[in-house]
Amino acid sequence: MIRESKLRSIIKSLSWRLLATLTTILIVYIFVGNTRIAFSIGGIEVFLKMLVYFLHERLWEKIRFGRREIKPLVVWITGLSRSGKSGIGRLLTKKLRSKGYKAEHLDGHSIRDLFPETGYSSQEVNQHIRRVGFLARKLEEQGVIVVATFLSPYAESREFVRKVTGRYFEIYISTPAEVCAARDQKGVYSQAAAGVLENFPGINSEYEIPKQPELTIDTSTTSQEEAATIIFSRIRKKL
Amino acid sequence: MIRESKLRSIIKSLSWRLLATLTTILIVYIFVGNTRIAFSIGGIEVFLKMLVYFLHERLWEKIRFGRREIKPLVVWITGLSRSGKSGIGRLLTKKLRSKGYKAEHLDGHSIRDLFPETGYSSQEVNQHIRRVGFLARKLEEQGVIVVATFLSPYAESREFVRKVTGRYFEIYISTPAEVCAARDQKGVYSQAAAGVLENFPGINSEYEIPKQPELTIDTSTTSQEEAATIIFSRIRKKL
Repeated sequence: MIRESKLRSIIKSLSWRLLATLTTILIVYIFVGNTRIAFSIGGIEVFLKMLVYFLHERLWEKIRFGRREIKPLVVWITGLSRSGKSGIGRLLTKKLRSKGYKAEHLDGHSIRDLFPETGYSSQEVNQHIRRVGFLARKLEEQGVIVVATFLSPYAESREFVRKVTGRYFEIYISTPAEVCAARDQKGVYSQAAAGVLENFPGINSEYEIPKQPELTIDTSTTSQEEAATIIFSRIRKKL
Repeated sequence: MIRESKLRSIIKSLSWRLLATLTTILIVYIFVGNTRIAFSIGGIEVFLKMLVYFLHERLWEKIRFGRREIKPLVVWITGLSRSGKSGIGRLLTKKLRSKGYKAEHLDGHSIRDLFPETGYSSQEVNQHIRRVGFLARKLEEQGVIVVATFLSPYAESREFVRKVTGRYFEIYISTPAEVCAARDQKGVYSQAAAGVLENFPGINSEYEIPKQPELTIDTSTTSQEEAATIIFSRIRKKL
């Protein structure tokens, strides 16, 4: 947040008026060749232009054309592990920022790294997602577009987030579990299948498929770049 | 966040230049009485003034005077129950907003209302405060001044917040427990004394007094309004 002081604005206004009027005086002098007339015109211009500028500003203040309020929103991306949520979120956030929007990417992994105690039981996951929803709302209230990428397998906490936020845009990454498992290099899918990892949505615990997501994308057939572009063009209409 | 479209700015610039030049033409005509000269001067002014305005803008772009970046901060207010934290936080947030700063008040009670499952054991309290610290950091990163009012009795989680945030300003409300208890109309102090409420800092669990707070205020002798004014003048220097 950069602020310019009142004094800077005052001095800048005065320096502009001085420069502008000197320009007028110069033009008039070149045409008319009379110093007295040139300076008289300049003297009147100084005051008259300030008045005209003020009236011009007040007139535009009343014109609504081309002025609109940007209401941010919360873009919630849900889907199985390795479905590509985080990558899409990163690309989308970058795209939003490059277009001059304030955007923040909240990612499940980064937040869990900060809070290693957060558990994986359905109760703990729901509580965690609700907290993230609250964080998203606070950012949204401050004019920030939130891109949240969380596995968020339960409808209950997703609906909490929908309710608590101002504008909620849910994107379901519908990539099938087999495709996600094939991409998995960390071996979490095979660990889950072997029962080493418990509560692993899509394998040994339920992923509740969103009933009415605002958008569904399957990354088996859509690249992360394409997904980010599709989401961007969809939410841009809402901004 | 209100945005003005490029087209609005273009049309507004053109309408100003037209109006300003018509004013010049009028002044010149009144003085010189010659339409041809008046319009010739106007014709040159249109282009010359645009060039001069552009150069004026570029010149000021290089002048640092009166321009400074506002780096927000996290104002963390800690103290016993009924010491007046929330009231001070509300007044401070209002004052900051009235001066044009973006500010957000995070209050312990409001957040606990949203997350009723948050427990009172030292481990749960520490975890809760660390999460709030993360939320505060995200808001701070987006240019928002955060006013956080939390009992936050443990040094461990307060130090986590200090580390995780960009600029941390800790205020210890040092009002003695007896004074806080005397103000208590909800009867939480007597319930804690009777053992009905457990883990009540200041009565049957420890409140770890901040070792090096940036500011200490005792609301036995300072009103909430005075406290908010003192804090505001101290942090304003940092903004």
